[in-house]
Amino acid sequence: MKIVLIGASGTLGQAIDAALSERHQIIRVGRQSGDLHVDITDSGSIRRLFEQVGQFDALVSAAGNLHFGALAEMSEAEYLIGLRDKLMGQVNLVLIGREFITDGGSFTLTSGILSDDPIRFGSSASMVNAAIDGFVRGAAIELPRGLRVNSVSPTVVTESMPGYAPYFRGFKPIPAAEAALGYVRSVEGAQTGQVYPMR
Amino acid sequence: MKIVLIGASGTLGQAIDAALSERHQIIRVGRQSGDLHVDITDSGSIRRLFEQVGQFDALVSAAGNLHFGALAEMSEAEYLIGLRDKLMGQVNLVLIGREFITDGGSFTLTSGILSDDPIRFGSSASMVNAAIDGFVRGAAIELPRGLRVNSVSPTVVTESMPGYAPYFRGFKPIPAAEAALGYVRSVEGAQTGQVYPMR
Repeated sequence: MKIVLIGASGTLGQAIDAALSERHQIIRVGRQSGDLHVDITDSGSIRRLFEQVGQFDALVSAAGNLHFGALAEMSEAEYLIGLRDKLMGQVNLVLIGREFITDGGSFTLTSGILSDDPIRFGSSASMVNAAIDGFVRGAAIELPRGLRVNSVSPTVVTESMPGYAPYFRGFKPIPAAEAALGYVRSVEGAQTGQVYPMR
Repeated sequence: MKIVLIGASGTLGQAIDAALSERHQIIRVGRQSGDLHVDITDSGSIRRLFEQVGQFDALVSAAGNLHFGALAEMSEAEYLIGLRDKLMGQVNLVLIGREFITDGGSFTLTSGILSDDPIRFGSSASMVNAAIDGFVRGAAIELPRGLRVNSVSPTVVTESMPGYAPYFRGFKPIPAAEAALGYVRSVEGAQTGQVYPMR
């Protein structure tokens, strides 16, 4: 398969790359690194990416930013960061990518554990991750041509604990390579509308 | 209790009003009807509302629009309607209302069954409703002063079936008065961070 991997240079992205590249052609995409570049908050940039890629068989997104902050200090503008970036950035990868993907192709997005297991400073993440999972369930039943869409909802990964540990006390981290299995299951399996909780 | 009811003239709003008004003072708010008016997509309008209301004990929102449409025709702009209105409109009721609510007060928002049970034309609703439930889980653990926040996630109500039946084939509708029980449980109970599925 020809697989477009958004966020290829990140911790998760590298693990997904390692898990898929033995059997598939990976087009590595990043904001500033990789084979091709994209700013997922800009639908024009997404369209230019797909025009460069041409037809492909699967898209995996391990990209998307949002604002972490104390609820007491969170404003509308700070929630909008995550809605525009991690949520609508990934949704636009599907909305625009569907014009370029082959019949039976798959989209795999990234949400995260905070949708269900909230932490301090994480109210935007809880909102955005839940929205991604909701979109996946809703969009899956309407996609044509045997197209599929799933999300992977990982817990915190071991490689990120040096920075994230104070926020995830009591969470059991998993290696990024283990989280990557969810993406492999989505891409090489046949399910759609699924949220794969990698915990 | 002094309860601010947003969307008071709607099908759900009227049922919530009937369920709460025997024991509580209800401030009925609508876009153009009711005791006071608000446009929840406009944070300035929300602030002016609360300045008119003054201190209150509970806010119940049964308001918020989003776009229903075939996934094949859904664009970014159409998803943004629901994100700005039903999602961020209700989130802003919490973000701004928290300055005016008494200690121990509660916010009750409305999501809906499509977060989990998708239908054709409902991908924006699945996204937005899930986002509201995610926000509630995330915000609840950070609210100060004993403040609480929950959402009610109703199925389709009997009173709406004349218009909605073609979209909800096979769904068991419930009377709006039964859906209203979720709001009563949220306002008069003591739980927080809960999603009440009224099915």
